[in-house]
Amino acid sequence: MTRIAIVGVAGRMGRTLVNAVEQQADASLAGGIVEPGSSLAGADIGELAGVGKRGVVAVDSLSAIVNDFDVLIDFTAPHVTLANLAFCAEHGKRIVIGTTGMNDDELVELDSYRDKVAMVFAPNMSVGVNLTLKLLETAAKALGDEGYDIEIIEAHHRHKVDAPSGTAIKMGEVVAERIGRTLKEHGVFERVGQCGPRTDKEIGFATVRAGDIVGEHTVMFATEGERIEITHKASSRMTFAKGAVRAARWVDGKAHGRYDMQDVLELN
Amino acid sequence: MTRIAIVGVAGRMGRTLVNAVEQQADASLAGGIVEPGSSLAGADIGELAGVGKRGVVAVDSLSAIVNDFDVLIDFTAPHVTLANLAFCAEHGKRIVIGTTGMNDDELVELDSYRDKVAMVFAPNMSVGVNLTLKLLETAAKALGDEGYDIEIIEAHHRHKVDAPSGTAIKMGEVVAERIGRTLKEHGVFERVGQCGPRTDKEIGFATVRAGDIVGEHTVMFATEGERIEITHKASSRMTFAKGAVRAARWVDGKAHGRYDMQDVLELN
Amino acid sequence: MTRIAIVGVAGRMGRTLVNAVEQQADASLAGGIVEPGSSLAGADIGELAGVGKRGVVAVDSLSAIVNDFDVLIDFTAPHVTLANLAFCAEHGKRIVIGTTGMNDDELVELDSYRDKVAMVFAPNMSVGVNLTLKLLETAAKALGDEGYDIEIIEAHHRHKVDAPSGTAIKMGEVVAERIGRTLKEHGVFERVGQCGPRTDKEIGFATVRAGDIVGEHTVMFATEGERIEITHKASSRMTFAKGAVRAARWVDGKAHGRYDMQDVLELN
Amino acid sequence: MTRIAIVGVAGRMGRTLVNAVEQQADASLAGGIVEPGSSLAGADIGELAGVGKRGVVAVDSLSAIVNDFDVLIDFTAPHVTLANLAFCAEHGKRIVIGTTGMNDDELVELDSYRDKVAMVFAPNMSVGVNLTLKLLETAAKALGDEGYDIEIIEAHHRHKVDAPSGTAIKMGEVVAERIGRTLKEHGVFERVGQCGPRTDKEIGFATVRAGDIVGEHTVMFATEGERIEITHKASSRMTFAKGAVRAARWVDGKAHGRYDMQDVLELN
Repeated sequence: MTRIAIVGVAGRMGRTLVNAVEQQADASLAGGIVEPGSSLAGADIGELAGVGKRGVVAVDSLSAIVNDFDVLIDFTAPHVTLANLAFCAEHGKRIVIGTTGMNDDELVELDSYRDKVAMVFAPNMSVGVNLTLKLLETAAKALGDEGYDIEIIEAHHRHKVDAPSGTAIKMGEVVAERIGRTLKEHGVFERVGQCGPRTDKEIGFATVRAGDIVGEHTVMFATEGERIEITHKASSRMTFAKGAVRAARWVDGKAHGRYDMQDVLELN
Repeated sequence: MTRIAIVGVAGRMGRTLVNAVEQQADASLAGGIVEPGSSLAGADIGELAGVGKRGVVAVDSLSAIVNDFDVLIDFTAPHVTLANLAFCAEHGKRIVIGTTGMNDDELVELDSYRDKVAMVFAPNMSVGVNLTLKLLETAAKALGDEGYDIEIIEAHHRHKVDAPSGTAIKMGEVVAERIGRTLKEHGVFERVGQCGPRTDKEIGFATVRAGDIVGEHTVMFATEGERIEITHKASSRMTFAKGAVRAARWVDGKAHGRYDMQDVLELN
Repeated sequence: MTRIAIVGVAGRMGRTLVNAVEQQADASLAGGIVEPGSSLAGADIGELAGVGKRGVVAVDSLSAIVNDFDVLIDFTAPHVTLANLAFCAEHGKRIVIGTTGMNDDELVELDSYRDKVAMVFAPNMSVGVNLTLKLLETAAKALGDEGYDIEIIEAHHRHKVDAPSGTAIKMGEVVAERIGRTLKEHGVFERVGQCGPRTDKEIGFATVRAGDIVGEHTVMFATEGERIEITHKASSRMTFAKGAVRAARWVDGKAHGRYDMQDVLELN
Repeated sequence: MTRIAIVGVAGRMGRTLVNAVEQQADASLAGGIVEPGSSLAGADIGELAGVGKRGVVAVDSLSAIVNDFDVLIDFTAPHVTLANLAFCAEHGKRIVIGTTGMNDDELVELDSYRDKVAMVFAPNMSVGVNLTLKLLETAAKALGDEGYDIEIIEAHHRHKVDAPSGTAIKMGEVVAERIGRTLKEHGVFERVGQCGPRTDKEIGFATVRAGDIVGEHTVMFATEGERIEITHKASSRMTFAKGAVRAARWVDGKAHGRYDMQDVLELN
């Protein structure tokens, strides 16, 4: 049984994490942290998350629950995360980090803990996305030089400000690297007007922006006679929460080191 | 029973038309025309099409079969089609025209026959595409001003030289017109980099080019909570042949006039 | 500006309705009802819904806000709804009813108000589902007797206990009725083992149950050469809330009568 | 350069194989076999296949071209294939066998050649289907015991007489085996009426039969928050021909042995 504590337990991601822990038979809710001075300190974290009273109250410092948990899950901000990382290293706890937006200095500081603590750090905790990257490697290796056209189609909600999505680009990079291409040279990000026939080596991207689509990615390998399509569809932030809880269960008992989701899924 | 003759019966479209006629209980194969001087004059048109001997031989002039057929189907070239149109007008025959690439003069000449013959003329004879245009009108009318984002996704084979497809643009025009927009003002044909959030009125296009895809079009209407998608997938030129045969059966017995596929499908 | 009051404003559907009203420029939040004696009476309904303080507090009786609203939206229980319907008829208010599960007696009682109040009553308020039914009618009319095979594929979450979904069956009925068939005679709900080739007139159903899929329905019309697919995907209960708000705006100012979503969408 | 000869070169599969060889820069058309006594002996095999004269004429015995080819491709009938296999073993040729329908005796006879010749034998030569099976293993391993629901959806043309397809069942078996389940115990092939909620371990199948669909298979892994879908779509028998040509190029130079498509794709 992995005892899990959650940082930022009153926020949307925190509450989703509580739900994800609740679903796992071999994990238990061991604590929740709110900001210092928050009026929610003392509230039951099950009630905060809408799953009913669980007898575990939110606190505003890690020290208060240092004996209660095995693994900390942190999806907050870089400076908060780094302080929590130091705490975990000092007290022999393990940590799962889903925090994004670290700058280079912060990444160096994070990496300096790789010999002092067991941590899982990944910018995208989704099990499905990480598995998809592995599947794409396998497909690219098998089809790369055999006349299959590669296209990546992604769809997101109307509020997204960039295109293609970071995940689509990552998928393209994984495929390209495996077959000796680069997106810089072979990526095609627009086709308008008399653009001529497709070239053999291009990797095309198509972007849809509409409604409330959380995130859908398809990579298509097509040739005369057949198509293979590998698709990931996110339907809620639960996909990230479940990935984090899976990482917490996996890292419990592991040796010091910096791990990512490929390690957690044992795909390497 | 509609007796149908086919111009260009030895070509790929002609042979597909023979197959499409064969499938209809209320239509019969009444004749096939090949180019003057062709060595295939005299061949059985069923054998040419791979459906077995039918007892109807290819001839190289319409005059030779003037008493045998009710409706002529013509997917050839503008000057051939206009000569056949004149013949049909003179001899009281009806005609279905799927010929593309007419210039303005040829279109004027074609139109001059609208009071002298019953003709169906359509650049795309596909029943499905024409129905889809009708469905799009209905959807656009119901959803147009209610916060639904409109996106059009199309996929074609690697050899296609232009983007988006003519059919995708036609779909966009039908939608735009119904809700008081224009593709010129509201069409968005590329999204790359930091392009910002989607605007309410834009109509987005996404293009896929891969393998042997004959032609797939999806128009998506998406808002918070739901999506409606209307999709057409062509799998072979049979879709055009079947539309033409349906038009032939429909125009048989109709009064002089120039009709299109919306008339044939009785969608107007 | 349509002033809207919401019954059951503290529940999940009530809070979603508040969000849907917030998104409409020509509708305003005019009141919210909670159960008599609820501790939430007096709470700001914007805060209850997570959209921030709106200066409108929840009350536990319609009488308290009788002068504040034009249209009431009610997704509660049959006996509550019927009482609210009587209130609206008496006080010249209009009402939108999304309540399900009425028995025959209750339906008769509801119908008895059709000359005393303007009401919109629909078991499924989704704009997209109702539009889809209309599109299916048009497609079935155009394709029904022309050799197109009709298949209905639906997918729902793992908790759904019946198959096919009620909406899938409704779609099948709409199609079947238009082309002179019935699901009783032509519906095919399973294909296992050596089931033989498809018959011309059957309407096939395929069911998927997985994960958290809110509800996806596709009706496919397929023949040699092409497919037309009409798809509806629900992503949240927002689809029902938005349909209800649209109905409220539409019915505001309408004469006494019982209307449904086909009326609201002006598809009849 | 692999010199390829094709058995049954005048049939539909044979002609497709000619087209597939034509597309490969490192393979050449070295011969074509027709039935003894066929009137097509002596015809140019390029013309037979519609790609234009290639200067290689069809013959009615392998002996006539024994010095011309390296690898034989055979998609014919069991007794023909076994005779050709013996010929190849005797003359130091390699062979790719796509023939189906062998009985147990014939399979034993085929296998007896595994030490005398280099052969690739696979009931489904499609590169995409074989790759998909490998992807499914990887996905099942990563997701199998983590609360992902597994569903398999397949669609085929109206003439198909069995359900689910053999390929769908094979996909289900590959997934089931990897995660300690069996289709016998966990396969669910119909859901009709009040069937109750989905169980955790079931593997569901859904079948669509419509139009001219060559073959589409999707395996879905879905949980709260996300879905992964792995899809294969065949569009023509070219997919089998291309797989066979790839196998021929791969086996050229290989040691004696019996190989399958997993070997050719180097997925083992």
